[in-house]
Amino acid sequence: MLASLDSPLLLGIDGGGSKCRAILFHPSKGVMGTGLSGAANPVNGMEAAREAIVDACVQALEAAGLSAEQLGECVAGAGLAGVNLPSCFAAMNAWQHPFAALHLTTDLHIACLGAHGRQDGAIMITGTGSCGFLDLAGKQTIVGGHGFPQGDKGSGAWYGLMAVQHALEASDGLAPATAMGAGLARALGSQEPLSWVEQLAGQRSTAYARLAAVVFEAAEQGDPEALAIRAEGADYINRLARQLLDAGAPRLSLLGGLGPLVIPHLSPEVQEALSPAQATPEMGAVFFAQDQRRAGARKEQG
Amino acid sequence: MLASLDSPLLLGIDGGGSKCRAILFHPSKGVMGTGLSGAANPVNGMEAAREAIVDACVQALEAAGLSAEQLGECVAGAGLAGVNLPSCFAAMNAWQHPFAALHLTTDLHIACLGAHGRQDGAIMITGTGSCGFLDLAGKQTIVGGHGFPQGDKGSGAWYGLMAVQHALEASDGLAPATAMGAGLARALGSQEPLSWVEQLAGQRSTAYARLAAVVFEAAEQGDPEALAIRAEGADYINRLARQLLDAGAPRLSLLGGLGPLVIPHLSPEVQEALSPAQATPEMGAVFFAQDQRRAGARKEQG
Repeated sequence: MLASLDSPLLLGIDGGGSKCRAILFHPSKGVMGTGLSGAANPVNGMEAAREAIVDACVQALEAAGLSAEQLGECVAGAGLAGVNLPSCFAAMNAWQHPFAALHLTTDLHIACLGAHGRQDGAIMITGTGSCGFLDLAGKQTIVGGHGFPQGDKGSGAWYGLMAVQHALEASDGLAPATAMGAGLARALGSQEPLSWVEQLAGQRSTAYARLAAVVFEAAEQGDPEALAIRAEGADYINRLARQLLDAGAPRLSLLGGLGPLVIPHLSPEVQEALSPAQATPEMGAVFFAQDQRRAGARKEQG
Repeated sequence: MLASLDSPLLLGIDGGGSKCRAILFHPSKGVMGTGLSGAANPVNGMEAAREAIVDACVQALEAAGLSAEQLGECVAGAGLAGVNLPSCFAAMNAWQHPFAALHLTTDLHIACLGAHGRQDGAIMITGTGSCGFLDLAGKQTIVGGHGFPQGDKGSGAWYGLMAVQHALEASDGLAPATAMGAGLARALGSQEPLSWVEQLAGQRSTAYARLAAVVFEAAEQGDPEALAIRAEGADYINRLARQLLDAGAPRLSLLGGLGPLVIPHLSPEVQEALSPAQATPEMGAVFFAQDQRRAGARKEQG
């Protein structure tokens, strides 16, 4: 076991609500391989998350010309959505995983470590979900990120839900029909509100996040409802940004797939305060695994 | 089979998202027994809905001193949430049910038949979900009722979700703390937003509907956020009512557990237009089964 822990092979894992990315990293050789699999949010299914993690890691090993058996020689750092919930952390931590060691933290923490090159800073994420995170003087604070539909305002899932709500009201004649209804019909491949509901009933955040572009496209066409939604989402991200900056974040990055759509509509001072990410969340997960190993080594020596 | 269909024993079933009610009815003896079981919304699980229906019906038989075996002598009328979705209706209709016959329609239809004593009219429901329904000159129209969270504005689930969203934003310091946060903490038995999220993550509409009273209690205390939510929910029900009345509804009833909380905040002209329900939805399901049998008998004779 100790021999394995001395291995320089590191796996960096970013497990989110819609996909799981892994990189195989060697301190002198750099990134040796990458892997991509499905959703790895343990809240939505522990077993599926574990399978997605292993799948992405095996891909990364194979891309480097190594075999799945060598998972046991790798020290893994994983940032997973949902493990800020204590019950979820405990369940995932109890996993009889195939790695030499597995260091577990949140997807937010590794994204922040990557974005600021393991220095203090804050991030905001607008992807399937939304969240703020501050890593300052060894203290980590999450702002928002309570999940869908109860939180995650300004996220892709939230934009999608707003589009669906407004289009359904319009289809009932309870609100004026706008460009969002036509956009939603195209996105869902049907003019029939009943079909929209059948496609979405009981679905999770990812199904709604796929519809976020409907709002931004309709807003570009001047649709007043879409403009109001876009402004409400941007207002939330502005408030999030101000709180992270007021709390002392020396650096702030906005991450997530919705970033390019959202950033132009944030307030000028928030746009001004944003810095680009220096490395990926997967790389942040490698940083985290390295830091944990060092802390462990110091503990053993001390 | 024909002998069974001639039986005067009728079961009226009202299957909703949070519970299933059944009555055993005899044309000359009246209501002989009642039963109550769990959620019977087929959208949230076909098998659970079928079990809830049988459970409630067996209770109704046993309350009348009859046995479960006599389900086969009963003609059942069932109004179920969700069967307005064609796929859901087809799946439920394929059931090898234990009744002599089963006549299937929506929970809205039976509620409307009950509320207006099988005459034309319209209903609005504000319970776990919300919906409008018009039964006029043989044509039935649903307005709203698209389910949670994509529709069902002004419903218990919607009020609960609004309370949670606002309390979580306040807990993050992104919105002012109001009485709703304290109310939510009491309702969920914890001061900890993390615990709220753990209790609600992945939960369905019923979990949120249980929190609806938080908004109304905070509004009574003058909480500005709660007052705004209450006004937004009432505005939706007002629009629903006006559309049903404009479409020609000769009579309009507001049903559902949230009614007593909602009605005082509707516009005066909508309150004026409301009539009390004349019979229960389960009784409406009995009316429906009787009407279907008569229509079937006419068909055979014709």
